[in-house]
Amino acid sequence: MTHLFGEPLEVVNIGLASFADNILTTGGTAVQVDWRPPGNGNEDVARSLANLIAHPDVEAANRIAYARYLAARPVLVGVGRARETIPGMTDRTILHSGPPIAWENVCGPVEGAVIGAVMYEGWATDVAGAQALLTSNEVTLSPCHHHACVGPMAGIISPSMPVWIVKNEEGGNIAFSNFNEGLGKALRFGANGEEVIDRLRWMRDVLAPTLAKVIDHIGGIELKPLMAQALHMGDEIHNRNVAASSLLFRRLLPAALRTDVNPADLAAVADFVTGNDHFFLNLSMAACKAMLDAAADVPHSSLVTAMARNGVEFGIRLSGCGDQWFVTDSPVVDGLYFAGYSSADAAPDLGDSSITETAGIGGFAMAASPAIVQFVGGTPDDAIANSEEMTNITLGRNEAFTLPSLDFAGTPAGIDVRKVVDTGIAPVINTGIAHKAPGIGQIGAGITRAPMACFSSALNALAQSLE
Amino acid sequence: MTHLFGEPLEVVNIGLASFADNILTTGGTAVQVDWRPPGNGNEDVARSLANLIAHPDVEAANRIAYARYLAARPVLVGVGRARETIPGMTDRTILHSGPPIAWENVCGPVEGAVIGAVMYEGWATDVAGAQALLTSNEVTLSPCHHHACVGPMAGIISPSMPVWIVKNEEGGNIAFSNFNEGLGKALRFGANGEEVIDRLRWMRDVLAPTLAKVIDHIGGIELKPLMAQALHMGDEIHNRNVAASSLLFRRLLPAALRTDVNPADLAAVADFVTGNDHFFLNLSMAACKAMLDAAADVPHSSLVTAMARNGVEFGIRLSGCGDQWFVTDSPVVDGLYFAGYSSADAAPDLGDSSITETAGIGGFAMAASPAIVQFVGGTPDDAIANSEEMTNITLGRNEAFTLPSLDFAGTPAGIDVRKVVDTGIAPVINTGIAHKAPGIGQIGAGITRAPMACFSSALNALAQSLE
Repeated sequence: MTHLFGEPLEVVNIGLASFADNILTTGGTAVQVDWRPPGNGNEDVARSLANLIAHPDVEAANRIAYARYLAARPVLVGVGRARETIPGMTDRTILHSGPPIAWENVCGPVEGAVIGAVMYEGWATDVAGAQALLTSNEVTLSPCHHHACVGPMAGIISPSMPVWIVKNEEGGNIAFSNFNEGLGKALRFGANGEEVIDRLRWMRDVLAPTLAKVIDHIGGIELKPLMAQALHMGDEIHNRNVAASSLLFRRLLPAALRTDVNPADLAAVADFVTGNDHFFLNLSMAACKAMLDAAADVPHSSLVTAMARNGVEFGIRLSGCGDQWFVTDSPVVDGLYFAGYSSADAAPDLGDSSITETAGIGGFAMAASPAIVQFVGGTPDDAIANSEEMTNITLGRNEAFTLPSLDFAGTPAGIDVRKVVDTGIAPVINTGIAHKAPGIGQIGAGITRAPMACFSSALNALAQSLE
Repeated sequence: MTHLFGEPLEVVNIGLASFADNILTTGGTAVQVDWRPPGNGNEDVARSLANLIAHPDVEAANRIAYARYLAARPVLVGVGRARETIPGMTDRTILHSGPPIAWENVCGPVEGAVIGAVMYEGWATDVAGAQALLTSNEVTLSPCHHHACVGPMAGIISPSMPVWIVKNEEGGNIAFSNFNEGLGKALRFGANGEEVIDRLRWMRDVLAPTLAKVIDHIGGIELKPLMAQALHMGDEIHNRNVAASSLLFRRLLPAALRTDVNPADLAAVADFVTGNDHFFLNLSMAACKAMLDAAADVPHSSLVTAMARNGVEFGIRLSGCGDQWFVTDSPVVDGLYFAGYSSADAAPDLGDSSITETAGIGGFAMAASPAIVQFVGGTPDDAIANSEEMTNITLGRNEAFTLPSLDFAGTPAGIDVRKVVDTGIAPVINTGIAHKAPGIGQIGAGITRAPMACFSSALNALAQSLE
């Protein structure tokens, strides 16, 4: 000991930087290691983590859940009407994104979108009428995720809306999503003007019946190979869908020409689909939902099966914790804002579209999509780093979705809540940004992180279930 | 001096490694620098290089030629029949790829393809008849490049074949290419069986008239923005064209639905176009030809305006040397061969498609296309390294074609013959590989390099023209 202090000190400091700073100030040398205690110092969380890491029941459950996720084979099998297709949908139900929320608590864009849906359904003729109806609680609000559904941003699905029907041909479970309206003024971003409602009606009356016929004619479209190909064409299939949308169009049109669809309708549908580079997004989400629902409800599994936001709260679900939500405040996204807007105008993070990251694409597959940074910010190197970092919190790689720039390694997939808490690495999410006021729409896009608090509480719940 | 040898030697050895090896053998230290004299030691070439580097006339000419290349705006303006559309085409002319070559000297795949074209035109009913006709010199063989044309692989264009018409709306020059038949048994790879001829006739009788109507309806398709978008979607637009082909289909189909084309024909055309991920290749080539012809014939310019191969010789043209070809033996490609084939079965490098590399895409834009390595070999890192290396031999970067993975830097473009000879870096070329025997077809694809000898002779010719 005496000997030690007689020599020049070479200090490695772990944790609080101030210790190292003091040494540096007095002319000494110190290397600072950025370490935090697991669970960020929270004793309960640290104990849960210690109990769960390498727990044989959790490991066994994860093997089952992860294998089901990997084996899932989502196929677009058709187009339906929400009321007749979605389990638990009633004549007066409106589905929304994220965890459950009461009408009086919804964020601006969800408020705008729900009002828009009420007018679209004809339950009210103007905004005031819609608000009165909603305040009287005559409309049931329910999360998409409670009905095997997912919807981007506000995620609004009302009874007469058309939905994609995606079946996991391996596990048999079915997932649904609404149709993508395009960018700009759109219901999902909270806009509800006449053009928005008119477009939704055209989608119901022309787009959906046309595509329904075409998909019936084709007999089903395997989504995983199409998504894998899109990853080789610069999509991350969350905020960049131009390749997947183009590939889908390539599948739809030759078949459409062999059906009896009205030629003028088909021309309008072709314009609409080719005019919207995000058209595939909702199908990507439904495919991811189908893959993750396949992995749900495996007792003791620490696999995250959903991350979803309602614009107020961010919630996650674990395979081992059934239908339970673990929620915390939804973060504001530090992104690229359209001219004239800033984060001060933004609603907190919103939408079910983070189901894509939960399934290993989106932010997790950014290495496939250097061009995405023009939309969400950062550099192509950041995009690669994000994919690489996510390998620290996932159960493995999905070899069905390979990333060319990483020598065709599979995308990191299957978020393990234990790894998230243990490493302090939060899942990365690419996302659109809605204005916080109802009725306005999209104001930007960016890269954000899932908040740690919901992972900590999910971890604690899983640990308790094993005691 | 005495002092120098009294100290331990730290040797930097330039050139022949044996000097350094001797020092290393005796226990000394030496760093070896891989340097070769300019022109690989050839005195004439070294003198030409010394005269041309920084020559004010060459510099001024290159500024003009390069600016014309950059400013070119290739637009697909229509579809025509070769005989009526291509300047200098006669009733008995067959165009081929690469520099000029006599019938008795053509390589196997060109032989097969020319025979196929004779049968397709109905000038003979079988292979023997076609051979007799060709041996009697009743058919004129002429290079595509002599007629503002380009054709991939054998590059065969006969009078009744349909051609793309691409106009440089900036410079006014027009370029042409034939239509892509798809992979497998195809005329351009030397196959000439019944299925090949039947397909060519269908392309003439159904595909071309249908697309002609559609393009007339659209009024022209700007190719540069479409190609730029394809580079952001993983194409290098030479051997990977799936994005560009998809984007083209997205443009064509909505318009087609507003024309009076026969619905059954349109369905067949849609199948054909969506069934061929290389459909855009010939349009990419015509666009590149239009850009480079804009830069041709600038006296004293050292810009390479064409690299093309006929399967026997590899030839290049310089802007400052008019119509002159500088040729050498065409190399055999060390690529990925289909099962059962090897380089022993391969025809030497073949086709006008290296016009893409000459224009800064293809191998020069490989950084945009990590997935191309699955087709041509190598790794994604190699692909990036190829794009970066090409900056050493080009006049600049084409900011119209940006490479996402290189932080959206423009693709290296405008090969300067001086830089090629000075650095010893040969242009990289991604290419398909044909069987050396007539009538078989494609047997692989790979990455190759243009042979240095034609650059040296072009350099000498340019130097002489300045004396």
